[in-house]
Amino acid sequence: VPLPETDLTARIRRQARKARAKALVAGIGDDSAVLRLPERHDLLVTTDFSIEGVHFRREWHPADSVGHRCLVRGLSDIAAMGGTPVAAFLSLAVPADLPQDWIDDFVNGLLELAARFKLPLAGGDTSESPGAVTADIIVTGAVPRGTALLRSGARPGDSIYVTGELGASAGVLHALMRGEQIAPNAKAARRHFYPEPRLALGEWLRDRKLASACIDLSDGLSTDLGHLCDESAVGALIYEHSLPRAPLPEALRFGASALHFALHGGEDYELLLTAAPKAKIPERIAKVPVRRIGEVIADKNHRAWLVDSHSQRKPLGRGGWEHFRE
Amino acid sequence: VPLPETDLTARIRRQARKARAKALVAGIGDDSAVLRLPERHDLLVTTDFSIEGVHFRREWHPADSVGHRCLVRGLSDIAAMGGTPVAAFLSLAVPADLPQDWIDDFVNGLLELAARFKLPLAGGDTSESPGAVTADIIVTGAVPRGTALLRSGARPGDSIYVTGELGASAGVLHALMRGEQIAPNAKAARRHFYPEPRLALGEWLRDRKLASACIDLSDGLSTDLGHLCDESAVGALIYEHSLPRAPLPEALRFGASALHFALHGGEDYELLLTAAPKAKIPERIAKVPVRRIGEVIADKNHRAWLVDSHSQRKPLGRGGWEHFRE
Repeated sequence: VPLPETDLTARIRRQARKARAKALVAGIGDDSAVLRLPERHDLLVTTDFSIEGVHFRREWHPADSVGHRCLVRGLSDIAAMGGTPVAAFLSLAVPADLPQDWIDDFVNGLLELAARFKLPLAGGDTSESPGAVTADIIVTGAVPRGTALLRSGARPGDSIYVTGELGASAGVLHALMRGEQIAPNAKAARRHFYPEPRLALGEWLRDRKLASACIDLSDGLSTDLGHLCDESAVGALIYEHSLPRAPLPEALRFGASALHFALHGGEDYELLLTAAPKAKIPERIAKVPVRRIGEVIADKNHRAWLVDSHSQRKPLGRGGWEHFRE
Repeated sequence: VPLPETDLTARIRRQARKARAKALVAGIGDDSAVLRLPERHDLLVTTDFSIEGVHFRREWHPADSVGHRCLVRGLSDIAAMGGTPVAAFLSLAVPADLPQDWIDDFVNGLLELAARFKLPLAGGDTSESPGAVTADIIVTGAVPRGTALLRSGARPGDSIYVTGELGASAGVLHALMRGEQIAPNAKAARRHFYPEPRLALGEWLRDRKLASACIDLSDGLSTDLGHLCDESAVGALIYEHSLPRAPLPEALRFGASALHFALHGGEDYELLLTAAPKAKIPERIAKVPVRRIGEVIADKNHRAWLVDSHSQRKPLGRGGWEHFRE
């Protein structure tokens, strides 16, 4: 196979050794990885594709950003469960003519983020791809038994909170689609190219049992709020004036709406959570601002409404963020 | 997304409910699955791609066979560790114009095999693929703490055993590549289209602590034996006359060698294991024949030799099975 299978395997082994991860018992270079979870913990498992032309474009996204974003997709799911990541696995299929440098940079971007959380890359698979670069990231995590933050616990009367600011990633993507040049390391652009998984924040909420439900914002507020409402069998009011909107990139100052991106833009990887009215949710958790943006209501059709400054409600349709399309 | 994401998600939920899997705590429809392993067990995790044009062809392989083979790749890895499978996860990317029937048959083939082992499909991801059908199967398993069968335990003097017969899958593939029509359900052809993961056999070995090392035969005996020798830092002798060779398909009676397929053909998903000379390995385990085919020797270059009926040794090169190529 014209694939750096040996290189990648060797790198995974070196990195796994360096991580000295307590959870990793054996099995690097074996038929499967062998992990040991702490006693009385539940196991979390999430898998997420990153496919060229669907989730990224090689002409827009530097390879290290693709690797970073690939791993963030999994880490953010673990954060939304209140989990502590244990080990990651990467399945990577690349076309035969993909430059070796691209693969190196991709793996570097992924491993640098992993190292920040002392997360071992414990295995995976490699293959030639007949077409697009295709990565599937698997992240395993752990929570003390029975403490995972689910989507299904929101109750009418609960407050709705969101972390950070919304719409930054979609704003940058929109500028890229318009053909604007965006430096990936510019401060505002990093929200798109190098988003931050809210792991410390998720663990904080889990340890204090303060959240009644939680979900990460990968598809956009309107869509992900819809998932939470479906799983909890409730409706929601969102106060338009309370939404923490990210400033738009310079190139989009005209003809684009920060509110639209905040409501429907995907890939912010912030957390959306609910908490009982009496729960004391601080204004910052793990250095990230947390804002109350609405409340849970009873609604058997699981609808959400946007409430404007005149207290007028309009239906908040699910934006259906679908990444970009070729 | 023009993908049956909802259908697939709904099917996964129904199947997960039906499986009533004790290990599955919550989280279907959540940011990640939540699993509970039995106390004092280690976790096994393996991931394997099945990519159109690399691992299967739609014109050769019926969709249900592709789904079956996809899951077998993961289950066979768990079997080689002596593991009991706990839950599977499927990441599936399909082109927009793929017929819905194909996806249904693929999922049916996978779920039928899963149901035989009471294995829940506990999550995954779906996406549009800009090219080939791409599936990544993740299988998690469990073993009592410290009992996983590794590749690294073989010692000089140990006997080498193999389960079942070798070369059947490669024989069928070779016939397909020659343009022969092969009925997928014919008895001899099932070894290629619907191979059997040796899970009961692996668990039997694990419970009795009889194997010093174990690996599954996915790449072919010569290659996988090489992996085992590398991990154990040993060499090997294989007795040519002892190899259990599968009969060749009718179409290959001339001009093809059953020995060649048995040595180098991939995807048999049998187990190769080593055991101390005094260990009593029965002739059948879990209804599968087990044959002694060689012995482990000291060799710092980790080489393997084929020994013929005149006791002559020749080097057994690693066959480098690479599936087929377009």
